[in-house]
Amino acid sequence: MKILVIGGTGLIGGAVVKRLQARHQVITAGSRTGDIQVDITQLDSIKNLYNEVKQLDGVIVASGKVVFAHLEKMSHQDYIIGINNKLMGQVNLVQEGVKSINPGGSFTLTSGILNRDPIVQGSSAAMVNGAIDGFVKASAIELPHGIRINAVSPTVITEALSVYEPYFRGFKPVDADTAALAYEKSVEGQQTGQVYHVG
Amino acid sequence: MKILVIGGTGLIGGAVVKRLQARHQVITAGSRTGDIQVDITQLDSIKNLYNEVKQLDGVIVASGKVVFAHLEKMSHQDYIIGINNKLMGQVNLVQEGVKSINPGGSFTLTSGILNRDPIVQGSSAAMVNGAIDGFVKASAIELPHGIRINAVSPTVITEALSVYEPYFRGFKPVDADTAALAYEKSVEGQQTGQVYHVG
Repeated sequence: MKILVIGGTGLIGGAVVKRLQARHQVITAGSRTGDIQVDITQLDSIKNLYNEVKQLDGVIVASGKVVFAHLEKMSHQDYIIGINNKLMGQVNLVQEGVKSINPGGSFTLTSGILNRDPIVQGSSAAMVNGAIDGFVKASAIELPHGIRINAVSPTVITEALSVYEPYFRGFKPVDADTAALAYEKSVEGQQTGQVYHVG
Repeated sequence: MKILVIGGTGLIGGAVVKRLQARHQVITAGSRTGDIQVDITQLDSIKNLYNEVKQLDGVIVASGKVVFAHLEKMSHQDYIIGINNKLMGQVNLVQEGVKSINPGGSFTLTSGILNRDPIVQGSSAAMVNGAIDGFVKASAIELPHGIRINAVSPTVITEALSVYEPYFRGFKPVDADTAALAYEKSVEGQQTGQVYHVG
């Protein structure tokens, strides 16, 4: 299969690429790194990406920024950052990608644990994750040509604990490679409309 | 209690007002109707609303627009309409309201069934509903002064079937008055961080 991994040089994306590249043709994209650059907040940049990479069998998004801050300190603009980046960035990658992805191809998005198990400062992440989970469930019943879509919703990643541990006390982390299994299942299995909880 | 119902002249909002007004001081707000006018897509309009109505014990939002259309026909702007209106409209009503609501007061938002049980043309609704559910769960653990927040997530409303029935075949509707019970529980109970599924 020919698989595009957006965020393919990140912690989770890198583990996904490592798992898939032995069996598949993997192309990585990122804001500054990877085989191709893309700004997922810009619709034109997403269109350019799909003009450069065609005949895809799978699109994986392991990328997306949100603002972490106390509820009373969050501004409207802080929420908009997460909406433009992690939410609409991923949604637009689906909306544009569906025009060119191969029949039977798949989209795998990334949400996260915080809408199920919230932390302080995580209201934007919870909002965006819930939105992604809902979008995936609904779009799965409308995608044409046997195209599938799933989300992976991981807890905090072991390799990221040096940064995130103070915010995730008591959370059992999972290794990036364990999270990568869910992406592999989404791409190589036949399920659709699923939200894979990892951890 | 002094309770503000945004969307208080709508189908659900009207049923909520009817339930609450015997025991409470109820003020209604709406885009064109109600005691006070508010455009929930405009932060300044929300700020004006809270300047006019102070000392609130409860804020109920039974309002919010999303675009219904086939996935492949949905534009970026179509999703933004739901995000600006039903999602950020409700979130901004909380963010601004928390500055003036009384200690122990409550916010009750409205999401909906479509992120749990999707229909064709409902991808924006599913996205926004999931976002609201996630925001409510996360913000509940951060609100100060014993302020609470819940969401009501109703299925299709019986009184709206004349419009919505073709889209909701096989869904068991609930009466607006039954949905109103969940809002009453949210305001007069002590739970927080809950998503009340109605139907």
